[in-house]
Amino acid sequence: MNNNFGIAIHGGAGTILREKLSPKLEQQFRAALTLSISNGYKILQDGGSSLDAVQAAIIVMENSELFNAGKGAVFTHDETNEMDSSIMCGKTLACGCGTLLKHIKNPIIFARTVMEKSEHVLLASDGAEQFAKLHNLEIVEPKYFHTKRRWFQLQVVKENEKETETTRTILDHDGDNSKHGTVGAVALDKDGNLAAATSSGGMTNKRFNRIGDTPMIGAGTYADNATCAVSTTGHGEYFMRLVTAKDISDMMSYKNLDLIDASKEAISKLSAIDGSGGVIAIDKDGNIAMPMNTPGMYRASFSANDKELSVKIFVEE
Amino acid sequence: MNNNFGIAIHGGAGTILREKLSPKLEQQFRAALTLSISNGYKILQDGGSSLDAVQAAIIVMENSELFNAGKGAVFTHDETNEMDSSIMCGKTLACGCGTLLKHIKNPIIFARTVMEKSEHVLLASDGAEQFAKLHNLEIVEPKYFHTKRRWFQLQVVKENEKETETTRTILDHDGDNSKHGTVGAVALDKDGNLAAATSSGGMTNKRFNRIGDTPMIGAGTYADNATCAVSTTGHGEYFMRLVTAKDISDMMSYKNLDLIDASKEAISKLSAIDGSGGVIAIDKDGNIAMPMNTPGMYRASFSANDKELSVKIFVEE
Repeated sequence: MNNNFGIAIHGGAGTILREKLSPKLEQQFRAALTLSISNGYKILQDGGSSLDAVQAAIIVMENSELFNAGKGAVFTHDETNEMDSSIMCGKTLACGCGTLLKHIKNPIIFARTVMEKSEHVLLASDGAEQFAKLHNLEIVEPKYFHTKRRWFQLQVVKENEKETETTRTILDHDGDNSKHGTVGAVALDKDGNLAAATSSGGMTNKRFNRIGDTPMIGAGTYADNATCAVSTTGHGEYFMRLVTAKDISDMMSYKNLDLIDASKEAISKLSAIDGSGGVIAIDKDGNIAMPMNTPGMYRASFSANDKELSVKIFVEE
Repeated sequence: MNNNFGIAIHGGAGTILREKLSPKLEQQFRAALTLSISNGYKILQDGGSSLDAVQAAIIVMENSELFNAGKGAVFTHDETNEMDSSIMCGKTLACGCGTLLKHIKNPIIFARTVMEKSEHVLLASDGAEQFAKLHNLEIVEPKYFHTKRRWFQLQVVKENEKETETTRTILDHDGDNSKHGTVGAVALDKDGNLAAATSSGGMTNKRFNRIGDTPMIGAGTYADNATCAVSTTGHGEYFMRLVTAKDISDMMSYKNLDLIDASKEAISKLSAIDGSGGVIAIDKDGNIAMPMNTPGMYRASFSANDKELSVKIFVEE
């Protein structure tokens, strides 16, 4: 038994500024993050698995309207919600992912089911939903994902696109974190097993069935008991190019960097190619790193080492 | 200018046995591989880019009925053809990928177009095809991909499934390389730039819109001028768990292994988790590695170092 168990979560990184976040909304975010991490931590404390802990933590965020995952997923250009998810077990390297999901209430449960009940790693679109039905996952109508806040965000982005007469087929709009929403969790359990999981609605106004880094093992999510568990959040395309989550694991494994230095180095590489975002990571000893190059990242951590639940939003906290 | 330019290609790895491959079919494979690598090599020799070389080499294989990519793509359980592709530039880390493509004649051209004309890395399904039309790529009817050999393979797999009363939702059939088809190319040009590309029809009888390792940057494809360019072929799910292409690059970068040792080590890791397949890789000095743990891999190489075009199929050649 390992006494250094712990969990870290994120609810997205981006241009989160104190002056833009109302006290009421800030309080809501802190409460949701607290509930999410507490649910995950309790599972670990009771001797449960890191897989169950990250899943429980993510379900809280998927069921909240606040985060860009599940219920609060952003809208695509075609006014649909298309969700991605992934989960990985550090003990076995087993993993499961879903993409282009439109009717599955909790994409993270879908990812877990793929990991455990299929021989595949990634299932997409209609086929994925057929698989979900076979396994009795909760299916909801698209209107479940229709929230006023996200609908308004899409209208603003489209309006802005019209005004600027954007001719680019892909929108480059960053003002309201339209690119940066994701939720994620990483955990170490008492048995010494690591797990990582990520869930996302992708980018506001995304087109052409764009798939981001969330369902990419190695980019958005990675876990290996020999090193660490990682979940990323930010402009996904950059994490895909750098294969960031696996890169952190490899810098620990091959270069003997510790978790803190490997995670920092990953963010430096992200900055070097003009990418933005953050990562959360936990190693086999329960150390936690949460570096970012954005003004903020919704995040929380709770480990047996620190004995204190920490919830943060802004970079300078 | 670098005099060590070169190119390597694969046309899939698997249970390719001398006694199962007729002399006529073997001759056809060797001729197609020769044409593919010659087209790529000529571009490099003339001072063209590694991206153009890998693309040209792959187009030959995509247009052939012999390989599981483009024209010769295998059938899904629903009797459709769903193709994946990816390409990566080692100089800039730019990359483009496509998945669930059904009407694009050359998926590799699609990947290149995503890399160069979009801000995204991976586009899927109908959205991807919409993007392809906007960029005037060649669109074909599904019947273009209907080949007698692949159709027959699907019937055999389905018949076998019926006879064995398989209740698993995912078929585990390996007899005729139904899992292993992919084509790929890696190249180093005279400017010292590396590129990698992969294209695949996936697995015969695949269900639930399964996506394999081909469109996953880091798993099926990776290129970084600092290290190497890699394309994998085999049972994709295992390459996804190991993030094999990026792993080879990282073993060179962080562990100072040379290309040969890093590639061998990647295959050992694949064997350790019961995965099967092979990789092709080229480093910044023009060294080429093509290890596998299967009885065969359709492959060829041609470099300024070796000055000789080499085409091989069986492991012991």
